[in-house]
Amino acid sequence: MPIDASILKNLKKIIGPKHVHDAWHQRAAYAYDASNREFVPDAVVFPSTTAQVAEIIRLANLNSFFVIPRGAGTGMTGGALAVQGGIMMPMTRMDQVLSIDPANLVADLEPGVVTGDFQKMVEAQGLFYPPDPSSSAYCTMGGNVAECAGGPKAVKYGVTRDYVLGLEAVTGAGEIIKTGVRTAKGVVGYDLTRLITGSEGTLAVITRITVRLLPLPESVRTITAVYDKIDDAAKTVAAVFSAGVICRSIEYLDQAAIGCAESHLGIGLPTDAEAILLLEVDGDPQQTERAAERVVKVCQDNHARKVTGVGDAAEAANLWKARKGLSPALFKYGPHKINEDIVVPRTKIPDVVRKINELRAKTGLTMVSFGHAGDGNIHFNIMLDKEDPVALEKAEAAVVELFQYTLQLGGTISGEHGVGISKAPYFDMEVSQTQIELMLHIKDVFDPNHILNPGKMFPPGA
Amino acid sequence: MPIDASILKNLKKIIGPKHVHDAWHQRAAYAYDASNREFVPDAVVFPSTTAQVAEIIRLANLNSFFVIPRGAGTGMTGGALAVQGGIMMPMTRMDQVLSIDPANLVADLEPGVVTGDFQKMVEAQGLFYPPDPSSSAYCTMGGNVAECAGGPKAVKYGVTRDYVLGLEAVTGAGEIIKTGVRTAKGVVGYDLTRLITGSEGTLAVITRITVRLLPLPESVRTITAVYDKIDDAAKTVAAVFSAGVICRSIEYLDQAAIGCAESHLGIGLPTDAEAILLLEVDGDPQQTERAAERVVKVCQDNHARKVTGVGDAAEAANLWKARKGLSPALFKYGPHKINEDIVVPRTKIPDVVRKINELRAKTGLTMVSFGHAGDGNIHFNIMLDKEDPVALEKAEAAVVELFQYTLQLGGTISGEHGVGISKAPYFDMEVSQTQIELMLHIKDVFDPNHILNPGKMFPPGA
Repeated sequence: MPIDASILKNLKKIIGPKHVHDAWHQRAAYAYDASNREFVPDAVVFPSTTAQVAEIIRLANLNSFFVIPRGAGTGMTGGALAVQGGIMMPMTRMDQVLSIDPANLVADLEPGVVTGDFQKMVEAQGLFYPPDPSSSAYCTMGGNVAECAGGPKAVKYGVTRDYVLGLEAVTGAGEIIKTGVRTAKGVVGYDLTRLITGSEGTLAVITRITVRLLPLPESVRTITAVYDKIDDAAKTVAAVFSAGVICRSIEYLDQAAIGCAESHLGIGLPTDAEAILLLEVDGDPQQTERAAERVVKVCQDNHARKVTGVGDAAEAANLWKARKGLSPALFKYGPHKINEDIVVPRTKIPDVVRKINELRAKTGLTMVSFGHAGDGNIHFNIMLDKEDPVALEKAEAAVVELFQYTLQLGGTISGEHGVGISKAPYFDMEVSQTQIELMLHIKDVFDPNHILNPGKMFPPGA
Repeated sequence: MPIDASILKNLKKIIGPKHVHDAWHQRAAYAYDASNREFVPDAVVFPSTTAQVAEIIRLANLNSFFVIPRGAGTGMTGGALAVQGGIMMPMTRMDQVLSIDPANLVADLEPGVVTGDFQKMVEAQGLFYPPDPSSSAYCTMGGNVAECAGGPKAVKYGVTRDYVLGLEAVTGAGEIIKTGVRTAKGVVGYDLTRLITGSEGTLAVITRITVRLLPLPESVRTITAVYDKIDDAAKTVAAVFSAGVICRSIEYLDQAAIGCAESHLGIGLPTDAEAILLLEVDGDPQQTERAAERVVKVCQDNHARKVTGVGDAAEAANLWKARKGLSPALFKYGPHKINEDIVVPRTKIPDVVRKINELRAKTGLTMVSFGHAGDGNIHFNIMLDKEDPVALEKAEAAVVELFQYTLQLGGTISGEHGVGISKAPYFDMEVSQTQIELMLHIKDVFDPNHILNPGKMFPPGA
């Protein structure tokens, strides 16, 4: 609904009239994210300073309206949607890289910096920021921190949490805090930095980020292995670790994913194979070379039909394009997608693949899986027409069954996409009531009037 | 003071009479830790199960007594001391490694497992647990998690926080929770795992730990470099990173530390040098060899007087023994030690060294510094007789001045030793009042009656 005129006036006073959007078409432009749901916010505000963010949140507390912080809206679980109305607050005007310090391997930046732009900036200085969600060309660092984004390089390099050293943030009470450190170590007080990281905008709005960087690896090599049997691909993953090689990425595509990528890109992928692995090693040139040789041998020993060590950067880029473009390409199989992001101990991948085959046979639905095999992180997609109630019901039952199975295997129902609205109904399958209550009380501490990003993470009614 | 007889009776009922120690000599045995302060607890209890821990904490809530969880008492900041009386609860009977899973690179263990024992167990299986506090031969994994212990290998491999995947813990309210995951990724709900890690036993008692492991590096090499000028040693640290080599450790000893180590061990260390660096590289054998060559060159380019690439494992072990034994060896300089653990951006190490020289000249006190130069983490020690009030006052003023300077340089007053009681008075130099209030409210959420480990971390009166 349109926002109260006096609130609108105050918002315009805080950040200037041109940065408050209240026309319907302007609000509609921020009704979406990659979860493919739609909730039109009551207004859209674009702050440019931490002080403005704090003023807006204090106004929200005084006037009881919701504030939904937003990066680029590339999230998969609806974290940036105004599901209960309120003010959408894209952080995209706060998009400056404030400093890059190569000697101390630290950078300071605002939350609206696009992750891929930041990666390129640091790489130009011989530095490396490893977290790399598939949406890196569009997504923002603030969104990455809020969701604790991962990506393929997590196998060797970890996730966003492992790179955030400190934050500036505005709590739901409108107070500005500076958490963490700008140094390699620091243990003074409770770890508010990691508490805010992954809290999906429900505790505080991130206004500044300090990250650590690494020296850029001198060389990278991608090995592709094609398998007749997906079990052999899964065995390869564990065997590579046992051989003492820590690949920076081990990605996999199942047969449906291979077919989809091939029809999308036409690069001659073997559509009859049950699985393809993309394994990436890095380091200094000789180290990379030797690691690649070991990986090739492990793939061969585990019955890969074909193993290609890609020397050519363009060819590797092409394969990665296929992998990164998969998520949107899936819409060829149906107008809607149920996208899940489970993680299991990596040796359990074959069990999950068997389970998915079983669910596919049982429901008759199109199911595609791919993901970060090295982390046991599987992106499981059901393509369907949500207007078809029978298909929808079958799909939802399949998701619950897969979640139950994932948890039985010692896994988790979200590896890097967060909970948002799409997994909130399943939250208590994984998290005990005692823990949910602790988390709700932590929410109360940071955001006593529950102004920030309502309806997210916690199960409905919690 | 001795504990109430009815409480004692109940404690004996919960864990058996022989695991409740209330005789004076038994209590006195748990009055100390490595902070060299003394507070005799009212009783000492040794639980062996999570259920027992929960029962004891519920009893504490009902009867208003304090519970102080304890590992091996090797902490430097008094975290395991009964400063306000209460029941000391060593977790040393819960000392089982429950599982080591080489294929998934995960282990489950109880908090009383000795860190060094665990390291040896995983190494025997070709695996690697990198966090490595100097007290690793005695300290426990539970204590390491509670304090977020670090150690020399943090440069490449990070600290305890980076290895804890999940915890079982009993909150101050006596509720058992299972946080986090057993997988490489996981983002379901607020990060209670890292909130408890480093919380110094003030939120919950850790009863089970899931850690991630790495493949054991195939080879390790230590390079020693001797410097006439400590500035050149500091420049070497930044230059090694710029050369693209991530050493796993870069340790330094200043001149006073070299003298102390030499008089302790007599291994021919150059006592006229201003600094020694110990640089350690690892990887596969060829990679290690090449990295070592690069490191040697960087040391030479930065005017090291002498550079030795140690091929001999026994010789390397000897040098590490000198480094690890420094902290206790310092008592040759005085009966008491004020031990601090600051961190600065690594390029600021020369500034800190100059500051320490200035403080030494100003106070006339013996000051020794050494530590993890690769992390900018400096262990700064003042040796004195605390019975001498003039020396004590000078020393305390010097510490405050060094802390102020550290914070000015963008550093932190505790890198890996925690806050405990020894840094609690300085806590608000680094942490804002707003953050302290957030942390106190988080404490209320986990431990509503403030039963757990009172008098720690927060500034007196907070």
